[in-house]
Amino acid sequence: MSTVEQQPLFLRACFNEHTERTPVWLMRQAGRYMAEYRAIRKDVDFWTLCKTPELCCEVTLQPIEAFGMDAAIIFSDLLVPLPPMGASVTFGKGMGPVIEPRIDRASDVDKLGRPDVADTMGYVGDAVNVTAKALPKDVPLIGFAGAPFTLAGYLIEGQGSKTWMKTKAFLHQEPKAAEKLFGMLADITIDLLKLQMDNGARAVQVFDSWVGALDPEDYKRWGLAYTRRIVEGVRREGVPVIVFAKGTGTYLDLVAQCGADVIGVDWTQPLDRARALVGPNVALQGNLDPGRLLGPWDALRPALDRVLDAAGDGKGHIFNLGHGIDRHTDPAQVKRLVDHVRTASAARRG
Amino acid sequence: MSTVEQQPLFLRACFNEHTERTPVWLMRQAGRYMAEYRAIRKDVDFWTLCKTPELCCEVTLQPIEAFGMDAAIIFSDLLVPLPPMGASVTFGKGMGPVIEPRIDRASDVDKLGRPDVADTMGYVGDAVNVTAKALPKDVPLIGFAGAPFTLAGYLIEGQGSKTWMKTKAFLHQEPKAAEKLFGMLADITIDLLKLQMDNGARAVQVFDSWVGALDPEDYKRWGLAYTRRIVEGVRREGVPVIVFAKGTGTYLDLVAQCGADVIGVDWTQPLDRARALVGPNVALQGNLDPGRLLGPWDALRPALDRVLDAAGDGKGHIFNLGHGIDRHTDPAQVKRLVDHVRTASAARRG
Repeated sequence: MSTVEQQPLFLRACFNEHTERTPVWLMRQAGRYMAEYRAIRKDVDFWTLCKTPELCCEVTLQPIEAFGMDAAIIFSDLLVPLPPMGASVTFGKGMGPVIEPRIDRASDVDKLGRPDVADTMGYVGDAVNVTAKALPKDVPLIGFAGAPFTLAGYLIEGQGSKTWMKTKAFLHQEPKAAEKLFGMLADITIDLLKLQMDNGARAVQVFDSWVGALDPEDYKRWGLAYTRRIVEGVRREGVPVIVFAKGTGTYLDLVAQCGADVIGVDWTQPLDRARALVGPNVALQGNLDPGRLLGPWDALRPALDRVLDAAGDGKGHIFNLGHGIDRHTDPAQVKRLVDHVRTASAARRG
Repeated sequence: MSTVEQQPLFLRACFNEHTERTPVWLMRQAGRYMAEYRAIRKDVDFWTLCKTPELCCEVTLQPIEAFGMDAAIIFSDLLVPLPPMGASVTFGKGMGPVIEPRIDRASDVDKLGRPDVADTMGYVGDAVNVTAKALPKDVPLIGFAGAPFTLAGYLIEGQGSKTWMKTKAFLHQEPKAAEKLFGMLADITIDLLKLQMDNGARAVQVFDSWVGALDPEDYKRWGLAYTRRIVEGVRREGVPVIVFAKGTGTYLDLVAQCGADVIGVDWTQPLDRARALVGPNVALQGNLDPGRLLGPWDALRPALDRVLDAAGDGKGHIFNLGHGIDRHTDPAQVKRLVDHVRTASAARRG
């Protein structure tokens, strides 16, 4: 141990260092599965919550206080850039987002504007600012934004999709318009991530949540090319970049070519296989199936151990789920999960 | 060439033989993208079509007559077993299936019956019988049925799902009831496939369409164990068994352990990678992204060549999509696809 103050555990793992135990946080850890969150949402709609920095701060801190994760992620939404571009986003009861008007033809891309991020999404920076100051010093705040395919997918489908077939049709039929759209989205994402870094985010995560719908060739063009541009655009000393592209397990080697410090991994393969694909020079984040949190502890515990085992010596591993936590998760299971990952990973380091 | 009459091209490829060219058929090749199909559906609802053998025959033959695929697949539906078990299946306008009542708790499994397949699904056998006789001798008819996870998923969710989270919760919370349900579904699927073989199906395909939602450990228990039982249960000299489990590309080696003759591959990895996972002793079926059929020919053609290239010498390769054809596909593209796969694969054999 050096006498110089150490970086927080989470950041050291992001930079692929050996750590004394495995840091843990969970995607969507601030959310509906927590009674504390539902108590706030009872009186506030989703967008109001996103746009009220003090409430974002409160909600972001809830899981840290309840469960002691090693990192916090700012409460916000991937679709934050869409309204300033000219597409409304509404959340119906029990439904995913609905985007209007959706992009139906090439000329619709020209109707979207390139908003100034600080002017129109400044509330995200403000929320990060307040929250970063409120967090314990050893719990870094993660900022985030969506990658172009995922954002474009919502714009083109007008909602979520199982197959993203309209989006694929658009990419193949209107590649020039798609390139214009993706370029604009990448630039906005870069600015939005920088805004969060300027306000105290100590790591950033790019969510390309649905890009796994593409085949490897299309992924190179519509996924990798833009995440690489984003990673290069936000690169800053000491601030790791995490790229999570769900459903890309078969071509995780391509995903890792984006230059990110950390690659998120879903649950469809053990981390040792993921490691074989991405090589030794990046950290891995994942990869428990959130569905396993819905089962009993005696089945969950060995699943946690399998994740830790597959991470080998644990170097450069951040424990997480392979997707956001489900709203029906029992908070008691989350507490057990966090505690077990802490103690079991420390024990493994001997 | 021997003087003994050769088996049809498609069957020889299923048995992993060298063939003079690559056989081709497309999942959901009889369907809404064809005007001929829509003309029939105009006057007949979906279930009536499924239950009218002469209409099934007509619809099954439509793509063979229009495009000349090397195999036909009987027009039917994965959810055929559900109503005789006691769960109604309705298709709303532009929606997927709705299943009522859904399985909400363990005791709901006991309310489902184990129907006699010949008595309650005899219309599938009749449709196969009529259609097998109507097809050209060199175009084998494929029978099919759903695997337990996929059928159970619809029963538990009450509809399709992006995440199959209710299904996972049920598996983890009620494993005994789930085993009872999966065992019953496997037995029904075995009987349904045998019924089709008895009536002239010369190959059968097991669709485990949504099992890729599981992690590898859960896949072994809730996917592989049952597809293996089904493959063993229907094994018959000269009738190949195809298993298609979309979204399982990261653990295709596990999928291949079911003992099927042919493994279906989705578009998330090239066939040479899939081959490396499954080994040399099974045939592969796939693996074009159906989204590519929505683009122009000058982009589609190189994608077809990439699939053929990745299949190496073409031994034991059946060209197909990695999922069902999209309803917005231009039939002219399907014609070009079939023609190109025929000529380009023959040219590759020299």
